[in-house]
Amino acid sequence: MRRQNLRLVLRHVSRNGKSSRAQLASATGLTKATVSSLVAELLDAYLLIELGPEPRGLTGRPGSALALNPDRYAGIGLEINVDYVAACVTDLKHRIRYHHVECADNRADAKIALDRLARLGSVAIRAAHEMELTPCGITLALPGIVDQVTGRLLRAPNLNWTDLPVVESLGDRLDVRPEEIHLDNEANLAALGELWFGGGEALGDFIHVSGEIGIGAGIVTRRALYRGARGFAGEIGHISIDPSGELCGCGGRGCLERFCGQEAMLRAAGLPPAAPATSTGDPGGPISGLLAALQRGEQQAIRAVRQGGEALGIGLAGVANVVDPDTIVLGGIFTPLASWLMEPFTAALLRQTVVTRWAPPRVAVSSLGPQAAVRGAAGSVVQRILADPSLFISGEEE
Amino acid sequence: MRRQNLRLVLRHVSRNGKSSRAQLASATGLTKATVSSLVAELLDAYLLIELGPEPRGLTGRPGSALALNPDRYAGIGLEINVDYVAACVTDLKHRIRYHHVECADNRADAKIALDRLARLGSVAIRAAHEMELTPCGITLALPGIVDQVTGRLLRAPNLNWTDLPVVESLGDRLDVRPEEIHLDNEANLAALGELWFGGGEALGDFIHVSGEIGIGAGIVTRRALYRGARGFAGEIGHISIDPSGELCGCGGRGCLERFCGQEAMLRAAGLPPAAPATSTGDPGGPISGLLAALQRGEQQAIRAVRQGGEALGIGLAGVANVVDPDTIVLGGIFTPLASWLMEPFTAALLRQTVVTRWAPPRVAVSSLGPQAAVRGAAGSVVQRILADPSLFISGEEE
Repeated sequence: MRRQNLRLVLRHVSRNGKSSRAQLASATGLTKATVSSLVAELLDAYLLIELGPEPRGLTGRPGSALALNPDRYAGIGLEINVDYVAACVTDLKHRIRYHHVECADNRADAKIALDRLARLGSVAIRAAHEMELTPCGITLALPGIVDQVTGRLLRAPNLNWTDLPVVESLGDRLDVRPEEIHLDNEANLAALGELWFGGGEALGDFIHVSGEIGIGAGIVTRRALYRGARGFAGEIGHISIDPSGELCGCGGRGCLERFCGQEAMLRAAGLPPAAPATSTGDPGGPISGLLAALQRGEQQAIRAVRQGGEALGIGLAGVANVVDPDTIVLGGIFTPLASWLMEPFTAALLRQTVVTRWAPPRVAVSSLGPQAAVRGAAGSVVQRILADPSLFISGEEE
Repeated sequence: MRRQNLRLVLRHVSRNGKSSRAQLASATGLTKATVSSLVAELLDAYLLIELGPEPRGLTGRPGSALALNPDRYAGIGLEINVDYVAACVTDLKHRIRYHHVECADNRADAKIALDRLARLGSVAIRAAHEMELTPCGITLALPGIVDQVTGRLLRAPNLNWTDLPVVESLGDRLDVRPEEIHLDNEANLAALGELWFGGGEALGDFIHVSGEIGIGAGIVTRRALYRGARGFAGEIGHISIDPSGELCGCGGRGCLERFCGQEAMLRAAGLPPAAPATSTGDPGGPISGLLAALQRGEQQAIRAVRQGGEALGIGLAGVANVVDPDTIVLGGIFTPLASWLMEPFTAALLRQTVVTRWAPPRVAVSSLGPQAAVRGAAGSVVQRILADPSLFISGEEE
């Protein structure tokens, strides 16, 4: 019960930015005495801070506002994608305190890729410590199907990795206990990144489309991820939009990502499949060549991206017909490509969505682009802290 | 609070079939005195009946079991589909007490179709009264997009009906107040019919596919319909599986129902688009000619249905990739066609579903076929009764 109430109080402060004890009591239905005692524990655990008295206008004595403490705990987000690795650190207030991306082809060798990630991860952990933040867990975003219970990557088609004990391998390299490391699909985490760090609740129920070499989606309804019955929802990259089309590595034909995945569009634009490895915070990294060609007005590049956009619109219309979101958010590489891709995408989407006339889905461009997944990963650590603050309170640990 | 508790008690009895007062107290956490008083009200309102004492083994005195009263209240389900109208009556225990289907082409004239439906509806209401059941509402299933707030059908592409005040028109014809009539999409109601009258909870999270002239789906997660942000989820008939394919009435191209809707398969089989109008309880009615051809082993018919099954498998793989259900249920005309359609359907579905290797979706055939929607319609009236029993209790009405 106390555990529930600690959570209730912390969540309310998190949602509202700041809150007085009196506001907490009235919002939660708890007595003022109970709230005061819960707040005292959360202050002692460095989860909350006291902002000091605020003017409250004409009536009542000024309440002291409470806020999340941004200077004590941190979440570490890591990501392995096909052509980059990334790490970031966020504090309890969902502020990004550290962010690093390194372009590299991870397909060659899983061991090397995990070494690379561990190197970035240990730098991120050190960065957190230098800011006097205590890392409270790691979430790793992967471009494939994961088993969250066993901590294994089952299959990442575009990495060509199958059945790897990723949590164990990363734990060994970072000297972190496996129970501190969580896995999730990068498209899921990118959608959560968009919810917590990007467009947020203004998007309503939304589908976040992650464009990378593969294409995935995260479906957010009522501020939570829709995961499906077995946790595999949102695998839109292998929707067939041409059953007699090209054979895909997944075994199907005419899969969506064969039309508008990064490599498909680069190929159609007459460009090499990947940019050279660079260490950069620039999210445009892997498609910088394509962006340059578009900016120069090269017709083949423009046509390639417009055709990709149309295919994406057809695929997403199918998804919108099934899921009926308020908003579709274009993320990943579709964010920097939006200027060229948006018009054919929207035209195809609206043409093939049944309810366009009554309730056309809104289309938005992510402000985070390819950075959404690693942010969502770090944010999901923060969410675990907010979900069970009792773990941080001495004597409450079970 | 009392309203909530009445609902809690009634729901528990409904879920468990029968229950003693002691079991209710322990299941709901309410005191025995409170339970006894709530039960007394529900008995007085004829919502519950007392089954009398039951043997309880060695200990305690025998409790008297309570059950839903199946002999007082009824839900009326009505359906207008493209080529039939239907009506049914169910009691509180979800037993079908009356069912009638009439084949007729409803495309010609909405007024005539509504007259036809009203005739069936008034026979069903009379049948309920003759069984001494009090009808407590009507739900009407329609093959299109409805606005539940205004009671209007916005668009039924396969009927070619647009923006009709269906609730008002039906209310006038039946002399029933508009607030007693609810509308819903037939694919949604068919999925609920499957949940309440068919495979039920054993299906887990499921997608129910309604094959008629159009194709729709209802998505059930955690025993409830997933409706989407604006209530339009599950419109799978217009997913494009061939963007360069035939133009559809919806404005899109290569829509799924152009490949495996009833008329598409009849045409491919070389059969006329609709069977002659008959009054029948036989759900095979509209496709009886096709079923006969299949049973005679006619190759063109077999090929047509197998091709339809394959297209359906490709479309549903896309849906399964997005939604990740435990089970896909083939309903509507796909139920009687399952013997011919199942194998190519399942092969295409599993080939194009990403997680087949780890967690292939199960495929089931509805036991209700085209009767699911009208049953779901009647059942949804019962659910409204169970959701707010206080409306039936004198002095509780507001």
